[in-house]
Amino acid sequence: MRNIMCVIAYDGTDFWGWQVQDEGRTVQGEIEKVLKTMTGENIRVTAAGRTDTGVHSTGQVINFSASMDNIPLDKIPLALNYYLPHDVRVLEAREVDCDFSSRFSATARLYRYYMYESPCSLPHLNRYAWRLIHHPDIRRLNKMASFFRGERDYTTFSNAKDASLSKKRNIHSAVFYYQNSQLVFEIKADSFLYRMVRSIVGSLIEFEKKAYDPYHIDEIIKKEKRELAGTTAPAHGLFLEKVFYD
Amino acid sequence: MRNIMCVIAYDGTDFWGWQVQDEGRTVQGEIEKVLKTMTGENIRVTAAGRTDTGVHSTGQVINFSASMDNIPLDKIPLALNYYLPHDVRVLEAREVDCDFSSRFSATARLYRYYMYESPCSLPHLNRYAWRLIHHPDIRRLNKMASFFRGERDYTTFSNAKDASLSKKRNIHSAVFYYQNSQLVFEIKADSFLYRMVRSIVGSLIEFEKKAYDPYHIDEIIKKEKRELAGTTAPAHGLFLEKVFYD
Repeated sequence: MRNIMCVIAYDGTDFWGWQVQDEGRTVQGEIEKVLKTMTGENIRVTAAGRTDTGVHSTGQVINFSASMDNIPLDKIPLALNYYLPHDVRVLEAREVDCDFSSRFSATARLYRYYMYESPCSLPHLNRYAWRLIHHPDIRRLNKMASFFRGERDYTTFSNAKDASLSKKRNIHSAVFYYQNSQLVFEIKADSFLYRMVRSIVGSLIEFEKKAYDPYHIDEIIKKEKRELAGTTAPAHGLFLEKVFYD
Repeated sequence: MRNIMCVIAYDGTDFWGWQVQDEGRTVQGEIEKVLKTMTGENIRVTAAGRTDTGVHSTGQVINFSASMDNIPLDKIPLALNYYLPHDVRVLEAREVDCDFSSRFSATARLYRYYMYESPCSLPHLNRYAWRLIHHPDIRRLNKMASFFRGERDYTTFSNAKDASLSKKRNIHSAVFYYQNSQLVFEIKADSFLYRMVRSIVGSLIEFEKKAYDPYHIDEIIKKEKRELAGTTAPAHGLFLEKVFYD
Protein backbone atom coordinates (compact mmCIF):
# COMPACT_ATOMS: atom_id res chain seq x y z
CA MET A 1 0.00 0.00 0.00
CA ARG A 2 1.17 3.50 -0.76
CA ASN A 3 0.25 6.60 1.26
CA ILE A 4 -0.66 9.07 -1.47
CA MET A 5 -0.86 12.81 -0.88
CA CYS A 6 -2.65 15.10 -3.37
CA VAL A 7 -3.08 18.84 -3.67
CA ILE A 8 -6.60 19.58 -4.85
CA ALA A 9 -8.66 22.62 -5.89
CA TYR A 10 -12.41 22.99 -5.90
CA ASP A 11 -15.23 25.44 -6.46
CA GLY A 12 -17.30 25.03 -3.30
CA THR A 13 -20.48 26.56 -4.76
CA ASP A 14 -22.22 23.26 -5.48
CA PHE A 15 -20.81 21.24 -2.56
CA TRP A 16 -22.10 20.70 0.95
CA GLY A 17 -18.55 21.22 2.14
CA TRP A 18 -15.67 18.77 2.38
CA GLN A 19 -16.93 16.08 4.71
CA VAL A 20 -19.14 13.14 3.73
CA GLN A 21 -22.59 13.32 5.29
CA ASP A 22 -25.91 11.56 4.91
CA GLU A 23 -27.29 13.92 2.31
CA GLY A 24 -25.80 16.22 -0.28
CA ARG A 25 -22.82 16.26 -2.59
CA THR A 26 -19.46 16.66 -0.81
CA VAL A 27 -15.87 16.91 -2.06
CA GLN A 28 -14.76 13.95 0.05
CA GLY A 29 -17.73 11.95 -1.24
CA GLU A 30 -16.89 12.65 -4.88
CA ILE A 31 -13.24 11.68 -4.45
CA GLU A 32 -14.03 8.49 -2.51
CA LYS A 33 -16.55 7.52 -5.20
CA VAL A 34 -13.88 7.91 -7.89
CA LEU A 35 -11.33 5.88 -5.87
CA LYS A 36 -13.94 3.13 -5.51
CA THR A 37 -14.50 3.16 -9.30
CA MET A 38 -10.75 3.00 -9.96
CA THR A 39 -9.75 0.39 -7.38
CA GLY A 40 -12.93 -1.41 -6.39
CA GLU A 41 -12.04 -0.67 -2.76
CA ASN A 42 -13.60 1.59 -0.14
CA ILE A 43 -10.80 4.09 0.48
CA ARG A 44 -11.12 6.74 3.16
CA VAL A 45 -9.69 10.17 2.30
CA THR A 46 -8.38 12.64 4.91
CA ALA A 47 -8.10 16.42 4.31
CA ALA A 48 -6.01 19.12 5.98
CA GLY A 49 -9.00 21.45 6.31
CA ARG A 50 -12.60 20.26 6.51
CA THR A 51 -14.03 23.23 4.61
CA ASP A 52 -17.66 24.18 5.12
CA THR A 53 -20.54 24.34 2.62
CA GLY A 54 -19.74 26.86 -0.14
CA VAL A 55 -16.08 27.39 0.82
CA HIS A 56 -13.57 27.07 -2.05
CA SER A 57 -10.03 25.76 -2.18
CA THR A 58 -7.01 26.29 -4.38
CA GLY A 59 -4.59 24.29 -2.22
CA GLN A 60 -6.40 21.72 -0.07
CA VAL A 61 -4.18 18.74 0.80
CA ILE A 62 -5.57 15.22 1.09
CA ASN A 63 -4.10 11.76 1.62
CA PHE A 64 -5.25 8.16 1.34
CA SER A 65 -3.86 4.63 1.43
CA ALA A 66 -4.09 2.73 -1.84
CA SER A 67 -1.96 0.38 -3.87
CA MET A 68 -2.89 1.54 -7.39
CA ASP A 69 0.24 -0.27 -8.53
CA ASN A 70 -0.82 -0.02 -12.13
CA ILE A 71 -0.70 3.80 -12.15
CA PRO A 72 2.60 5.70 -12.00
CA LEU A 73 2.50 8.56 -9.47
CA ASP A 74 2.71 11.33 -12.06
CA LYS A 75 -0.35 9.93 -13.85
CA ILE A 76 -2.55 9.87 -10.74
CA PRO A 77 -3.81 13.47 -11.16
CA LEU A 78 -4.73 12.72 -14.78
CA ALA A 79 -6.47 9.48 -13.84
CA LEU A 80 -8.47 11.02 -10.97
CA ASN A 81 -9.38 14.13 -13.01
CA TYR A 82 -10.71 11.88 -15.75
CA TYR A 83 -13.42 10.59 -13.41
CA LEU A 84 -13.91 13.62 -11.12
CA PRO A 85 -16.56 16.29 -11.79
CA HIS A 86 -15.20 19.54 -13.24
CA ASP A 87 -15.51 21.50 -9.99
CA VAL A 88 -12.82 19.37 -8.27
CA ARG A 89 -9.32 18.99 -9.72
CA VAL A 90 -6.25 17.12 -8.52
CA LEU A 91 -3.25 19.39 -9.13
CA GLU A 92 -0.44 17.07 -8.02
CA ALA A 93 0.21 13.73 -6.32
CA ARG A 94 3.12 12.48 -4.25
CA GLU A 95 3.95 9.34 -2.29
CA VAL A 96 4.57 10.13 1.37
CA ASP A 97 5.71 8.28 4.52
CA CYS A 98 3.15 5.89 5.93
CA ASP A 99 2.76 8.01 9.08
CA PHE A 100 2.02 11.20 7.15
CA SER A 101 -1.48 12.66 7.69
CA SER A 102 -2.63 15.63 5.60
CA ARG A 103 -4.54 16.74 8.67
CA PHE A 104 -2.33 15.96 11.67
CA SER A 105 1.06 16.55 10.01
CA ALA A 106 0.07 20.02 8.80
CA THR A 107 1.91 22.79 10.63
CA ALA A 108 -0.13 25.70 9.25
CA ARG A 109 -3.07 26.66 7.02
CA LEU A 110 -3.45 29.83 4.97
CA TYR A 111 -6.93 31.17 4.14
CA ARG A 112 -7.90 34.17 2.02
CA TYR A 113 -11.25 35.92 2.16
CA TYR A 114 -12.23 38.06 -0.87
CA MET A 115 -14.52 41.10 -0.80
CA TYR A 116 -15.53 43.81 -3.27
CA GLU A 117 -17.24 47.14 -2.82
CA SER A 118 -20.25 47.85 -4.98
CA PRO A 119 -23.76 49.29 -4.59
CA CYS A 120 -25.11 46.23 -6.42
CA SER A 121 -23.78 42.72 -6.94
CA LEU A 122 -21.34 42.19 -9.83
CA PRO A 123 -22.15 38.86 -11.54
CA HIS A 124 -18.56 37.82 -12.33
CA LEU A 125 -17.32 38.55 -8.79
CA ASN A 126 -20.35 37.42 -6.83
CA ARG A 127 -19.53 33.72 -6.96
CA TYR A 128 -16.15 34.11 -5.24
CA ALA A 129 -16.31 37.30 -3.17
CA TRP A 130 -18.50 39.00 -0.57
CA ARG A 131 -20.05 42.31 -1.59
CA LEU A 132 -19.54 45.23 0.79
CA ILE A 133 -21.89 48.18 0.57
CA HIS A 134 -19.45 50.64 2.13
CA HIS A 135 -15.80 51.55 1.66
CA PRO A 136 -13.94 50.47 4.81
CA ASP A 137 -10.83 52.23 6.11
CA ILE A 138 -8.14 49.60 5.56
CA ARG A 139 -5.82 51.11 8.17
CA ARG A 140 -8.49 50.66 10.84
CA LEU A 141 -9.19 47.12 9.62
CA ASN A 142 -5.49 46.29 9.91
CA LYS A 143 -5.29 47.83 13.37
CA MET A 144 -8.13 45.50 14.41
CA ALA A 145 -6.50 42.54 12.63
CA SER A 146 -3.27 43.12 14.55
CA PHE A 147 -4.85 41.61 17.69
CA PHE A 148 -5.09 38.25 15.93
CA ARG A 149 -1.44 37.40 16.46
CA GLY A 150 0.22 34.62 18.45
CA GLU A 151 -1.34 32.05 20.74
CA ARG A 152 -4.59 33.29 22.30
CA ASP A 153 -7.94 31.83 23.29
CA TYR A 154 -10.32 32.60 20.42
CA THR A 155 -13.58 31.42 22.04
CA THR A 156 -15.15 34.75 21.05
CA PHE A 157 -14.69 33.89 17.35
CA SER A 158 -15.70 30.25 17.63
CA ASN A 159 -18.97 28.63 16.62
CA ALA A 160 -21.41 26.79 18.88
CA LYS A 161 -20.79 23.66 16.79
CA ASP A 162 -17.03 23.69 17.39
CA ALA A 163 -16.20 20.51 19.30
CA SER A 164 -12.56 21.22 20.17
CA LEU A 165 -11.65 21.10 23.86
CA SER A 166 -9.26 24.05 23.78
CA LYS A 167 -10.16 27.21 21.89
CA LYS A 168 -6.53 28.33 21.92
CA ARG A 169 -5.06 28.76 18.47
CA ASN A 170 -1.72 30.15 17.29
CA ILE A 171 -2.14 32.78 14.54
CA HIS A 172 0.97 33.62 12.49
CA SER A 173 -0.39 36.61 10.57
CA ALA A 174 -3.65 38.37 9.73
CA VAL A 175 -3.75 41.24 7.25
CA PHE A 176 -6.07 43.11 4.87
CA TYR A 177 -4.81 44.33 1.47
CA TYR A 178 -6.20 45.40 -1.91
CA GLN A 179 -5.65 43.21 -4.96
CA ASN A 180 -6.96 44.87 -8.11
CA SER A 181 -10.50 45.91 -7.28
CA GLN A 182 -10.88 43.44 -4.41
CA LEU A 183 -10.24 43.67 -0.70
CA VAL A 184 -8.50 40.54 0.64
CA PHE A 185 -8.16 39.30 4.22
CA GLU A 186 -5.31 36.80 4.54
CA ILE A 187 -4.81 34.77 7.69
CA LYS A 188 -2.33 32.03 8.55
CA ALA A 189 -2.43 29.89 11.70
CA ASP A 190 -1.41 26.46 12.99
CA SER A 191 -5.09 25.57 12.75
CA PHE A 192 -8.50 27.23 13.08
CA LEU A 193 -11.69 26.77 15.05
CA TYR A 194 -14.87 25.89 13.14
CA ARG A 195 -16.02 28.99 11.14
CA MET A 196 -13.37 31.12 12.86
CA VAL A 197 -12.15 32.92 9.71
CA ARG A 198 -15.67 33.89 8.67
CA SER A 199 -16.46 35.07 12.19
CA ILE A 200 -13.31 37.24 12.26
CA VAL A 201 -13.91 38.79 8.81
CA GLY A 202 -17.60 39.44 9.43
CA SER A 203 -16.93 41.00 12.84
CA LEU A 204 -14.08 43.23 11.66
CA ILE A 205 -16.05 44.53 8.67
CA GLU A 206 -19.07 45.19 10.92
CA PHE A 207 -17.09 46.88 13.68
CA GLU A 208 -15.17 49.07 11.22
CA LYS A 209 -18.47 50.20 9.69
CA LYS A 210 -19.85 51.00 13.16
CA ALA A 211 -16.65 52.98 13.89
CA TYR A 212 -15.77 50.91 16.97
CA ASP A 213 -12.43 51.62 18.59
CA PRO A 214 -9.94 49.01 17.26
CA TYR A 215 -9.00 48.11 20.86
CA HIS A 216 -12.55 46.83 21.28
CA ILE A 217 -11.34 43.70 19.42
CA ASP A 218 -8.61 43.08 21.97
CA GLU A 219 -11.14 43.41 24.77
CA ILE A 220 -13.69 40.99 23.32
CA ILE A 221 -10.98 38.39 22.59
CA LYS A 222 -10.01 38.62 26.27
CA LYS A 223 -13.61 38.17 27.41
CA GLU A 224 -13.89 34.78 25.62
CA LYS A 225 -17.62 35.09 24.93
CA ARG A 226 -19.11 34.11 21.56
CA GLU A 227 -22.01 36.55 21.87
CA LEU A 228 -19.54 39.45 21.69
CA ALA A 229 -18.52 38.62 18.12
CA GLY A 230 -20.23 40.33 15.21
CA THR A 231 -21.83 38.86 12.12
CA THR A 232 -20.35 35.81 10.33
CA ALA A 233 -19.23 36.56 6.76
CA PRO A 234 -20.79 34.33 4.04
CA ALA A 235 -18.98 31.18 2.90
CA HIS A 236 -18.56 32.03 -0.80
CA GLY A 237 -15.76 34.59 -0.23
CA LEU A 238 -13.49 32.09 1.56
CA PHE A 239 -10.63 30.09 0.00
CA LEU A 240 -8.35 27.54 1.67
CA GLU A 241 -5.23 28.58 -0.24
CA LYS A 242 -2.31 26.61 1.14
CA VAL A 243 -1.37 24.00 3.73
CA PHE A 244 2.14 23.87 5.21
CA TYR A 245 4.21 20.86 6.34
CA ASP A 246 7.69 20.65 7.81
CA MET B 1 -40.62 59.59 -23.34
CA ARG B 2 -37.14 59.53 -21.85
CA ASN B 3 -34.08 58.05 -23.53
CA ILE B 4 -32.52 56.03 -20.71
CA MET B 5 -28.94 54.81 -20.77
CA CYS B 6 -27.76 52.08 -18.38
CA VAL B 7 -24.40 50.50 -17.63
CA ILE B 8 -24.88 46.78 -17.08
CA ALA B 9 -22.78 43.78 -16.04
CA TYR B 10 -23.43 40.13 -16.73
CA ASP B 11 -22.00 36.65 -16.40
CA GLY B 12 -22.29 35.30 -19.95
CA THR B 13 -22.01 31.63 -18.94
CA ASP B 14 -25.72 30.87 -19.08
CA PHE B 15 -26.65 33.24 -21.93
CA TRP B 16 -26.80 32.69 -25.65
CA GLY B 17 -25.15 36.08 -26.02
CA TRP B 18 -26.64 39.58 -26.03
CA GLN B 19 -29.03 39.54 -28.95
CA VAL B 20 -32.59 38.19 -28.87
CA GLN B 21 -33.02 35.14 -31.05
CA ASP B 22 -35.67 32.48 -31.63
CA GLU B 23 -34.34 30.07 -29.03
CA GLY B 24 -32.26 30.40 -25.90
CA ARG B 25 -31.90 32.84 -23.06
CA THR B 26 -30.26 36.16 -24.03
CA VAL B 27 -29.31 39.28 -22.05
CA GLN B 28 -31.39 41.53 -24.33
CA GLY B 29 -34.33 39.13 -23.96
CA GLU B 30 -34.17 39.15 -20.16
CA ILE B 31 -34.02 42.96 -19.99
CA GLU B 32 -36.85 43.45 -22.48
CA LYS B 33 -38.98 40.96 -20.55
CA VAL B 34 -38.44 42.95 -17.34
CA LEU B 35 -39.26 46.26 -19.08
CA LYS B 36 -42.47 44.68 -20.36
CA THR B 37 -43.37 43.57 -16.80
CA MET B 38 -42.62 47.05 -15.42
CA THR B 39 -44.31 49.18 -18.10
CA GLY B 40 -46.67 46.87 -19.97
CA GLU B 41 -45.00 48.03 -23.20
CA ASN B 42 -42.77 46.28 -25.72
CA ILE B 43 -39.54 48.25 -25.39
CA ARG B 44 -36.59 47.57 -27.66
CA VAL B 45 -33.15 47.77 -26.02
CA THR B 46 -29.95 48.67 -27.92
CA ALA B 47 -26.44 47.71 -26.73
CA ALA B 48 -22.99 49.10 -27.52
CA GLY B 49 -21.54 45.62 -28.09
CA ARG B 50 -23.59 42.64 -29.19
CA THR B 51 -21.55 40.12 -27.21
CA ASP B 52 -21.52 36.49 -28.30
CA THR B 53 -22.62 33.34 -26.42
CA GLY B 54 -20.58 32.93 -23.22
CA VAL B 55 -18.92 36.37 -23.32
CA HIS B 56 -19.12 38.38 -20.09
CA SER B 57 -19.45 42.09 -19.43
CA THR B 58 -18.57 44.46 -16.62
CA GLY B 59 -19.38 47.67 -18.53
CA GLN B 60 -21.86 47.05 -21.35
CA VAL B 61 -23.90 50.17 -22.18
CA ILE B 62 -27.53 49.96 -23.27
CA ASN B 63 -30.29 52.47 -24.01
CA PHE B 64 -34.04 52.39 -24.49
CA SER B 65 -36.99 54.78 -24.82
CA ALA B 66 -39.49 54.64 -21.99
CA SER B 67 -41.55 57.03 -19.95
CA MET B 68 -41.41 55.26 -16.54
CA ASP B 69 -42.53 58.60 -15.06
CA ASN B 70 -43.29 56.96 -11.74
CA ILE B 71 -39.65 55.94 -11.15
CA PRO B 72 -36.95 58.51 -10.36
CA LEU B 73 -33.77 57.95 -12.40
CA ASP B 74 -31.62 56.93 -9.45
CA LYS B 75 -34.14 54.19 -8.53
CA ILE B 76 -34.14 52.60 -12.01
CA PRO B 77 -31.16 50.28 -11.31
CA LEU B 78 -32.84 49.09 -8.10
CA ALA B 79 -36.18 48.55 -9.86
CA LEU B 80 -34.68 46.65 -12.82
CA ASN B 81 -32.41 44.56 -10.57
CA TYR B 82 -35.44 43.55 -8.51
CA TYR B 83 -36.89 41.73 -11.53
CA LEU B 84 -33.71 40.72 -13.37
CA PRO B 85 -32.04 37.32 -12.87
CA HIS B 86 -28.89 37.42 -10.72
CA ASP B 87 -26.48 37.04 -13.63
CA VAL B 88 -27.43 40.46 -15.05
CA ARG B 89 -27.14 43.66 -13.01
CA VAL B 90 -27.84 47.29 -13.81
CA LEU B 91 -25.02 49.35 -12.30
CA GLU B 92 -26.23 52.86 -13.14
CA ALA B 93 -28.88 54.71 -15.15
CA ARG B 94 -28.86 58.16 -16.74
CA GLU B 95 -31.22 60.17 -18.93
CA VAL B 96 -29.55 61.09 -22.24
CA ASP B 97 -30.37 63.18 -25.35
CA CYS B 98 -33.04 61.68 -27.56
CA ASP B 99 -30.52 61.17 -30.39
CA PHE B 100 -28.06 59.20 -28.19
CA SER B 101 -27.54 55.57 -29.21
CA SER B 102 -25.46 53.28 -26.98
CA ARG B 103 -24.29 51.59 -30.19
CA PHE B 104 -23.84 54.38 -32.75
CA SER B 105 -22.72 57.14 -30.37
CA ALA B 106 -19.96 54.98 -28.89
CA THR B 107 -16.48 56.17 -29.86
CA ALA B 108 -14.56 53.16 -28.51
CA ARG B 109 -14.90 49.78 -26.81
CA LEU B 110 -12.42 48.15 -24.43
CA TYR B 111 -12.25 44.35 -24.12
CA ARG B 112 -10.10 42.22 -21.82
CA TYR B 113 -9.32 38.56 -22.37
CA TYR B 114 -8.17 36.54 -19.32
CA MET B 115 -5.89 33.50 -19.41
CA TYR B 116 -4.10 31.36 -16.81
CA GLU B 117 -1.31 28.82 -17.07
CA SER B 118 -1.88 25.43 -15.48
CA PRO B 119 -1.40 21.76 -16.35
CA CYS B 120 -5.01 21.13 -15.30
CA SER B 121 -8.06 23.35 -15.05
CA LEU B 122 -8.52 25.38 -11.85
CA PRO B 123 -12.20 25.36 -10.87
CA HIS B 124 -12.40 28.94 -9.54
CA LEU B 125 -10.66 30.42 -12.62
CA ASN B 126 -12.12 28.20 -15.30
CA ARG B 127 -15.41 30.04 -15.57
CA TYR B 128 -13.81 33.38 -16.49
CA ALA B 129 -10.42 32.59 -18.04
CA TRP B 130 -8.90 30.42 -20.75
CA ARG B 131 -6.38 27.82 -19.55
CA LEU B 132 -3.01 27.78 -21.34
CA ILE B 133 -0.91 24.63 -21.17
CA HIS B 134 2.38 26.44 -21.83
CA HIS B 135 4.12 29.54 -20.49
CA PRO B 136 4.21 32.09 -23.31
CA ASP B 137 6.97 34.69 -23.70
CA ILE B 138 5.10 37.93 -23.02
CA ARG B 139 7.67 40.06 -24.87
CA ARG B 140 7.05 38.08 -28.06
CA LEU B 141 3.29 38.29 -27.52
CA ASN B 142 3.55 42.06 -27.18
CA LYS B 143 5.74 42.34 -30.27
CA MET B 144 2.99 40.50 -32.19
CA ALA B 145 0.28 42.64 -30.57
CA SER B 146 2.09 45.81 -31.70
CA PHE B 147 0.88 45.26 -35.29
CA PHE B 148 -2.71 45.77 -34.13
CA ARG B 149 -2.45 49.54 -34.03
CA GLY B 150 -4.23 52.24 -36.05
CA GLU B 151 -6.61 51.86 -38.95
CA ARG B 152 -6.00 48.67 -40.93
CA ASP B 153 -8.08 46.10 -42.79
CA TYR B 154 -8.57 43.19 -40.36
CA THR B 155 -10.21 40.72 -42.77
CA THR B 156 -7.69 38.08 -41.62
CA PHE B 157 -9.12 38.24 -38.07
CA SER B 158 -12.76 38.41 -39.11
CA ASN B 159 -15.37 35.66 -39.03
CA ALA B 160 -17.30 34.26 -41.99
CA LYS B 161 -20.51 35.47 -40.30
CA ASP B 162 -19.34 39.09 -40.11
CA ALA B 163 -21.74 41.10 -42.27
CA SER B 164 -19.94 44.47 -42.27
CA LEU B 165 -19.08 45.90 -45.68
CA SER B 166 -15.67 47.25 -44.69
CA LYS B 167 -13.30 45.19 -42.57
CA LYS B 168 -11.26 48.28 -41.70
CA ARG B 169 -11.17 49.02 -38.00
CA ASN B 170 -9.21 51.56 -35.95
CA ILE B 171 -7.37 49.96 -33.00
CA HIS B 172 -6.15 52.32 -30.25
CA SER B 173 -4.08 49.86 -28.23
CA ALA B 174 -3.47 46.14 -27.82
CA VAL B 175 -1.29 44.81 -25.00
CA PHE B 176 -0.62 41.70 -22.88
CA TYR B 177 0.18 42.00 -19.16
CA TYR B 178 0.15 39.88 -16.01
CA GLN B 179 -2.37 40.58 -13.26
CA ASN B 180 -1.80 38.38 -10.22
CA SER B 181 -1.58 34.86 -11.60
CA GLN B 182 -3.44 35.68 -14.81
CA LEU B 183 -2.31 36.77 -18.26
CA VAL B 184 -4.53 39.54 -19.66
CA PHE B 185 -4.89 40.79 -23.24
CA GLU B 186 -6.42 44.27 -23.34
CA ILE B 187 -7.58 45.81 -26.60
CA LYS B 188 -9.33 49.10 -27.34
CA ALA B 189 -10.73 50.12 -30.73
CA ASP B 190 -13.43 52.31 -32.28
CA SER B 191 -15.30 49.07 -32.91
CA PHE B 192 -14.59 45.41 -33.67
CA LEU B 193 -15.49 42.83 -36.31
CA TYR B 194 -17.54 39.81 -35.23
CA ARG B 195 -15.33 37.49 -33.08
CA MET B 196 -12.27 39.61 -33.87
CA VAL B 197 -10.88 39.76 -30.32
CA ARG B 198 -11.10 35.99 -29.87
CA SER B 199 -9.49 35.42 -33.27
CA ILE B 200 -6.59 37.75 -32.37
CA VAL B 201 -6.00 36.20 -28.93
CA GLY B 202 -6.24 32.63 -30.18
CA SER B 203 -3.90 33.30 -33.11
CA LEU B 204 -1.28 35.15 -31.07
CA ILE B 205 -1.19 32.46 -28.37
CA GLU B 206 -0.92 29.74 -31.06
CA PHE B 207 1.76 31.53 -33.10
CA GLU B 208 3.84 32.31 -30.01
CA LYS B 209 3.71 28.63 -29.04
CA LYS B 210 4.80 27.62 -32.54
CA ALA B 211 7.66 30.16 -32.30
CA TYR B 212 6.56 32.08 -35.41
CA ASP B 213 8.46 35.26 -36.20
CA PRO B 214 6.39 38.18 -34.79
CA TYR B 215 6.52 39.89 -38.22
CA HIS B 216 4.44 36.98 -39.54
CA ILE B 217 1.44 38.77 -37.95
CA ASP B 218 2.08 41.92 -39.96
CA GLU B 219 2.27 39.86 -43.16
CA ILE B 220 -0.96 37.96 -42.61
CA ILE B 221 -2.84 41.18 -41.73
CA LYS B 222 -1.64 42.60 -45.09
CA LYS B 223 -2.78 39.51 -47.00
CA GLU B 224 -6.41 39.98 -45.82
CA LYS B 225 -7.27 36.27 -45.84
CA ARG B 226 -9.25 34.64 -43.02
CA GLU B 227 -7.65 31.23 -43.57
CA LEU B 228 -4.29 32.66 -42.45
CA ALA B 229 -5.52 33.32 -38.89
CA GLY B 230 -4.95 30.76 -36.16
CA THR B 231 -7.41 29.23 -33.72
CA THR B 232 -10.23 31.26 -32.13
CA ALA B 233 -9.94 31.56 -28.34
CA PRO B 234 -12.98 30.34 -26.36
CA ALA B 235 -15.70 32.81 -25.36
CA HIS B 236 -15.53 32.40 -21.58
CA GLY B 237 -12.25 34.37 -21.18
CA LEU B 238 -13.66 37.51 -22.81
CA PHE B 239 -15.09 40.57 -21.02
CA LEU B 240 -16.54 43.74 -22.55
CA GLU B 241 -15.11 46.07 -19.92
CA LYS B 242 -15.91 49.63 -20.97
CA VAL B 243 -17.61 51.68 -23.67
CA PHE B 244 -16.49 55.24 -24.42
CA TYR B 245 -18.54 58.26 -25.54
CA ASP B 246 -17.53 61.85 -26.34
